[in-house]
Formats: sequence, structure tokens, C-alpha cells
Amino acid sequence: MGHRPHLYLPPPWTGPAIELSNNQRHHLRSVLRLEDAEELTYTDGAGLTGMGHLQANTVIRSTELRHPPPRPLLTLAVAPPRDKDRARFLVEKAAELEVTRLVWLQTRYGQGHPPPMARATGWAVAGLEQSQGAYLLQIESTPVRLEELDRQTWSGEIWLSVGDGEPLPGSLPEVMTVAIGSEGGWAPEELSLGLARVSLGRTILRVETAAITVAARVRRA
Amino acid sequence: MGHRPHLYLPPPWTGPAIELSNNQRHHLRSVLRLEDAEELTYTDGAGLTGMGHLQANTVIRSTELRHPPPRPLLTLAVAPPRDKDRARFLVEKAAELEVTRLVWLQTRYGQGHPPPMARATGWAVAGLEQSQGAYLLQIESTPVRLEELDRQTWSGEIWLSVGDGEPLPGSLPEVMTVAIGSEGGWAPEELSLGLARVSLGRTILRVETAAITVAARVRRA
Repeated sequence: MGHRPHLYLPPPWTGPAIELSNNQRHHLRSVLRLEDAEELTYTDGAGLTGMGHLQANTVIRSTELRHPPPRPLLTLAVAPPRDKDRARFLVEKAAELEVTRLVWLQTRYGQGHPPPMARATGWAVAGLEQSQGAYLLQIESTPVRLEELDRQTWSGEIWLSVGDGEPLPGSLPEVMTVAIGSEGGWAPEELSLGLARVSLGRTILRVETAAITVAARVRRA
Repeated sequence: MGHRPHLYLPPPWTGPAIELSNNQRHHLRSVLRLEDAEELTYTDGAGLTGMGHLQANTVIRSTELRHPPPRPLLTLAVAPPRDKDRARFLVEKAAELEVTRLVWLQTRYGQGHPPPMARATGWAVAGLEQSQGAYLLQIESTPVRLEELDRQTWSGEIWLSVGDGEPLPGSLPEVMTVAIGSEGGWAPEELSLGLARVSLGRTILRVETAAITVAARVRRA
């Protein structure tokens, strides 16, 4: 059951061959021990995938396909978990489940710090390649506070995840954001912003569990 | 934002006080530095929760509540991930999301081994305590093969998770099992068992992501 490797090859692509990064070359040649002419798939992370083959330090492009973006466009706005493994899990799973965007929330009671951008992007790329997806999770480089969320061009309808709200509605908007607080909960001034509330169930979920749960429910298949 | 600790205290309970384990005593007294008379909640992991307080090496029971079991009764039958961290994540998240039962699948192409039972139970208890739940994830001690699943008393309706099936239906049975294969996929003889098929989406999910996705969708809140 050999898997064909799926590579994220950042655009722009010009011409019939795309150069591999040093890491990719090492992984394909030294870890997977692929030879010239072996088939692989690739994506620009923005909806385009292709089936190509390896040649020297490049991928030779062949049949390419454009995929519609997953709907709704879903942003997760998440208070960073304190634990690095949990942050990695959150990013990787969000990428596997085709979440559109991840933004780190600065909350009143949050005690975690966003992981370094390069590392988080690496986790997202790993999730994209693993899941053979076509859309790379976008990670915002600047954390935002809850009251700044609705000033973003991408936020759409915003829900605040709380213990005692209604479940996500059956019919969802085209563009939406779910904000997930720290394990310390929301401060009174955060709760009083007037955002719609959503409950994820009767148990209290860790930050990364709540985030994956939202992604799984919004991407209903 | 101090959280009241939530403890799993295995039954049977007799009399007004429940003895703590050595680990629990250490955690409450030395890590959390709780004093006598401090409030905490507890559960038997079988639907009963209580609000009590600490006294010496015991919890003094007070108001107790019986919670209905989460519906549907959901079993995840999962090929064990090869990586220990991924197995831990799977168990912990299944426990947080009130999955009823976890059974490890022996599949033709699976390369992982079930984690030791004591360790897996520890992860499930951590998830239960963290999420302040009332039902402890049951972990079967013996792995089963796919063709043995429907001989189990608990299996109910069985779905096989595949890339090209229908999504989970909106109306679910009271008792159900979703089988999740290894990253190597299902062997022809596994696919030919005639089980109903379900697709979790257009991307290829890792074992633990697939399991959490099923749990999140079945426990819709």
C-alpha cells in the first residue's frame, strides 16, 4: 500500500518543472528513496493539484486540477494552548480538516503563547501533505483580541464558544469564525461584546479539542 | 479562574466518605495544595456525579446527580496509530467527547500496536476529569478483527470509514460503531465484508483525526 507522496510546492510556478526545496529533496531521495520518474502529486495550497513525476531536483508538471474551496470559509480564532504538543495537534488537525484560517486570540485569561510562525506553518504543511489536500491552512501572523475580530475582512459571522449556548445551526453562512477561549474561560468584558454564542456539548473541552470539534462539525463531509 | 477539581472515583462507594488513591492524594495535596474542606466534584464514570469536599484522605460525599448516558452509544473501532502521542491524543479526545467505547482493530494493513491497557485507561481518566464528564470511556482489553465486530453485544449498526462513501446520516441509530482503518487503508477482504460505508470528507485523515471527527459529528451537542 505505497502512498504516492503529496507535496506542497509554493507558487508561483513558471514553466514545466518546479524546483524542490532542500528539505523536500532530502525527504524524497534519502528518506523515501524515490528514483527519477516516480509519480507524485503536488499542490499550490490554493486549490490547484497536479500529478507529476520526479526528475533531478524538480517535479515535472502534468495533469492539473482546480478544486473549489471548502465551504463555509471557516476561521478558527483560538487562545493558544500552553502545551506545544497540543498546539501542534491543533494546527495539524485544522489543516487536515481544511479549515481556511487560524488566528491566535489574545484573551484576558489565556496563559499560552502562539507557537513561532515558521513552526506553525510547518505543522500546517505537514497536515496538508498528509491529507492530500488542495488548500493550505492560512495562519495569521499577528494575534488579535476578541473585540478586533469583527474588524477583519475575513471574519464573516462570528460565534463565541461557551458552555451554555445553542449548538451550531444546521444551516451555516458562507463565511464564519468561531472563537475558542482558553481553559480559564472568557472574562466578563469578553462575554459582553454581544457575539453570538455556540455550545459544543455538555462536557468541557480542551482548547484543541474544541477547535477540532468545530472543524469536524462545520466540514460535515 | 480556579477550577474545582473533578475526580474519577471508581465504584463501589459505601458510606459517606470515599477513599482517594495515592496518586489523587498526592495531586490534590502536593500539586494543587488543597486544604481540608475544599470543594471538589467527583464521578463514578457510570453516570453519577457529586459535589463534595476534601477531608484527610477522603472525599466527603454530598449532593449527587445521575446523568443520562450520551446518545447514541458510540463505539470507535480503530486501528492503533503507530505513534504513541497520537494514540494518547485519540484516547484523551474520545474521552472528552463522551465516546462510549473504544476497541482496537486488528487490520490487515495496520502497523501499530495497541498501547498498554493501564496507560490507555490513564489517558481516558485524564480526559474524563479534564472535561468534568460523568461517563468514562470504556476501552476493550482485547483487539478484534473487523469480521468479529458484529458478533459483539455492543456493536449496533456498523459503518466502515472509507474515502468514497456517503457522509454520516442526519438521523443516527441508538447504538452504533464506526470502524477506522490504518493509514494503509482496508484490504480487499475487509472491504468485501458488506459493511455500510461512510466518508468523512474529501481529504485523507490520519487515524486519530478520523476518530475525533466521528466523535465530534456523532456528539452534535
